[in-house]
Amino acid sequence: MARKASLSGFPEWLPAERLVELHVLDTLRKTFELHGFSNIETRAVETVGQLLRKGEIDKEVYGLSRLQAEEGEAGRQDPNALALHFDLTVPFARYVVENSGHLAFPFRRYQIQKVWRGERPQDGRFREFTQADIDVVGDGELPFRYDVELALVIAEALSALPIGEFRLRVNNRKLAEGFYLGLGLEDTAGVLRSIDKLEKIGPEKVAELLRTELGATAGQAAAALALAGIRTTDTSFVEQVRALGVEHPLLDQGLDELAQVIGAASTRAPGQVVADLSIARGLDYYTGTVYETVLVGHEQLGSICSGGRYESLASKGSRTFPGVGLSIGVTRLVSRMLAEETAAATRSVPTAVLVTLAHDDSWPEAQDIAAALRARGIAVEVAAKAEKFGKQIKYADRRGIPFVWFTSAEGSHEVKDIRSGEQVPADPATWTPPAEDLHVRILPAASPAAVTA
Amino acid sequence: MARKASLSGFPEWLPAERLVELHVLDTLRKTFELHGFSNIETRAVETVGQLLRKGEIDKEVYGLSRLQAEEGEAGRQDPNALALHFDLTVPFARYVVENSGHLAFPFRRYQIQKVWRGERPQDGRFREFTQADIDVVGDGELPFRYDVELALVIAEALSALPIGEFRLRVNNRKLAEGFYLGLGLEDTAGVLRSIDKLEKIGPEKVAELLRTELGATAGQAAAALALAGIRTTDTSFVEQVRALGVEHPLLDQGLDELAQVIGAASTRAPGQVVADLSIARGLDYYTGTVYETVLVGHEQLGSICSGGRYESLASKGSRTFPGVGLSIGVTRLVSRMLAEETAAATRSVPTAVLVTLAHDDSWPEAQDIAAALRARGIAVEVAAKAEKFGKQIKYADRRGIPFVWFTSAEGSHEVKDIRSGEQVPADPATWTPPAEDLHVRILPAASPAAVTA
Repeated sequence: MARKASLSGFPEWLPAERLVELHVLDTLRKTFELHGFSNIETRAVETVGQLLRKGEIDKEVYGLSRLQAEEGEAGRQDPNALALHFDLTVPFARYVVENSGHLAFPFRRYQIQKVWRGERPQDGRFREFTQADIDVVGDGELPFRYDVELALVIAEALSALPIGEFRLRVNNRKLAEGFYLGLGLEDTAGVLRSIDKLEKIGPEKVAELLRTELGATAGQAAAALALAGIRTTDTSFVEQVRALGVEHPLLDQGLDELAQVIGAASTRAPGQVVADLSIARGLDYYTGTVYETVLVGHEQLGSICSGGRYESLASKGSRTFPGVGLSIGVTRLVSRMLAEETAAATRSVPTAVLVTLAHDDSWPEAQDIAAALRARGIAVEVAAKAEKFGKQIKYADRRGIPFVWFTSAEGSHEVKDIRSGEQVPADPATWTPPAEDLHVRILPAASPAAVTA
Repeated sequence: MARKASLSGFPEWLPAERLVELHVLDTLRKTFELHGFSNIETRAVETVGQLLRKGEIDKEVYGLSRLQAEEGEAGRQDPNALALHFDLTVPFARYVVENSGHLAFPFRRYQIQKVWRGERPQDGRFREFTQADIDVVGDGELPFRYDVELALVIAEALSALPIGEFRLRVNNRKLAEGFYLGLGLEDTAGVLRSIDKLEKIGPEKVAELLRTELGATAGQAAAALALAGIRTTDTSFVEQVRALGVEHPLLDQGLDELAQVIGAASTRAPGQVVADLSIARGLDYYTGTVYETVLVGHEQLGSICSGGRYESLASKGSRTFPGVGLSIGVTRLVSRMLAEETAAATRSVPTAVLVTLAHDDSWPEAQDIAAALRARGIAVEVAAKAEKFGKQIKYADRRGIPFVWFTSAEGSHEVKDIRSGEQVPADPATWTPPAEDLHVRILPAASPAAVTA
């Protein structure tokens, strides 16, 4: 678990670790599909022009060039040059525009793929990592209710993972901007940028920034900080904001929207989805609801799932496609699960049974037994050589295979649970391992700290 | 289906097409796991030095460089520079060496990932495509039986796909080399290279090549061509080769090995695995068994699954890791399935039921119904707005959702199959759709030509 990646920032898992990651991916897929999300994949590459369209120069992009490129091929500064995508939102926006004639809107999609960023690797930050995104995108308009629904879907998906407690923190950009405008602070983006530094530099320095850089009065700065201090698990944040005495139509709209999300979540995902009026996120991007998520006890890991509402994910002529979506940082989550051993596989291989060979020429018969077991969904390997039984059992033990199958010269069959040593007669046509041994399962670690609150 | 990729060589599927691809991937995974193969993923990038280690300059490699790279960073000619992998074998070899201390040998792994090649795209050839590989790798030695087993696993995996008939063609490098040596032709690689051109240039030109470039006599050339002409569905190829009157110990070994593969396959996968003594493949790489696979009726598509035995997949000091493996060209296969419409999804979304809204404030109640259905594995969406029922039904119809759920003001429930129009009372706690509507299924097309022989 403490192995170092051979290339910094490019993690690779051992087979037993990959089982944990597969469990996470399978669980997310199952939840998303139960909620009617369709899967798509987009190509790993975009044109540089597409990737930098929104001026995302803060993301470190990996450009591509053929090793055997000839003179005159697109150089990496050329907007038509290819580069690896750094998230799944930019490619999805392109996909929606390109395929809009073939999609039924509102289009619900999930997408689970690797993305690449040439950043300096650090704890929880990688150069290659997997994201799992869900978005709903409308054609022209998209009811606000999807902002509520997506919070619930994500809470359900994260609850199904053996990751312990989490908090999905929700805020609303309209609420914050309306509040600042109501206060008389016109540069709302500037205020948000300062408030975003709250955790890093503390309230006093933020207040100073607001005063010196944005011309706020001490009262305005105090009010902005008071707003950012509001955190509730129910809709009582509305009253707390109202108590600050600021009025603005945009504030009203933001309060109403956030109350819809928190109101539904406080009954459907109690304690998991909270209002947190300090959340800023993606300054140039989101236009209403914003989400981020922390693992309780692992807050310093950063957000494991973020997103929000964007009034124009993409546009095609005068047609715009508003959307709301969230992105789970699968690799960040899995790397923490593995490092903290919060979950583990019941065995390290899919195999439930090793069929041994009594003689070297009993391999075809052993294959028949294996085929009979596999027909009932039991994962089986057949020994490749008729070594001494002790050696064949040792092989199973070394690989973590729980059951070993023996066939006598007379054709009678026995199966041994090598963990208990129990050996019983068995019929290839009917024998099945106990349900808990049929498939590899991923269980939360017994140690309480990491799993429960 | 006839949509053009917006970037040549980088195919992207619509949601309903992706369902076909997912079915292929799920089926392969299930088969591989039933046979005890563990899944791993390796990073998408390798160092240029690693990728070109075997002098693979025929593969067009995509090099990487950060768009914001500073002067002095590794250039793309630098062996430490990064590039995208062009197959899954080179990364797997590196992974085995790096993690040999953590793996149980023989190590059985499957790996399903995208690979990239900067080649000129053409029918069946892409710049980004998915491969599904299985390999068994030993530490120092690996019994030949795995060569037999892998042919059977692949035949089982391909049989489970709605792709129609296929032929897994098997040959053995030792057989061919032994034969050439027995004939007195010492440059066996040269002969193989000429024989490999058989399909392209025909027997007469190959005979000429053998005579002019390799100094073969007319008799030697004729014998080499006679060998390449042998194709059998059982082990009768042994007699046919013997009848050519050539003797060599390596030939004996090759005949014995190939007879083991074809002997087992002729009973376990009759007609699917054939001996084809013209197969050459991967000249510098494979040392014994070689495999390639064609779709019957789509031979011009090229091989959809190839591989072989390599005595030294990787080495670490004096330790070598022999292996045997095959790689399925998933994208090539799926692109043909989609183009020929050999299989299709029973619906285009995972959703089985749309829960409608009678009033805008019945959304929470509709969510309760949805949750009750999802708890039984039924994929459900809830309408976002209480539009006229006709409009809500039209939404379901447009998305391909088969069932629509209605709740009256008195709390009675009914569910309508919008395909038949049948509407019946239903209880959210017990109602389940017919088994064939529970999940999306991928069915072979009704049109016979593409599916049956």
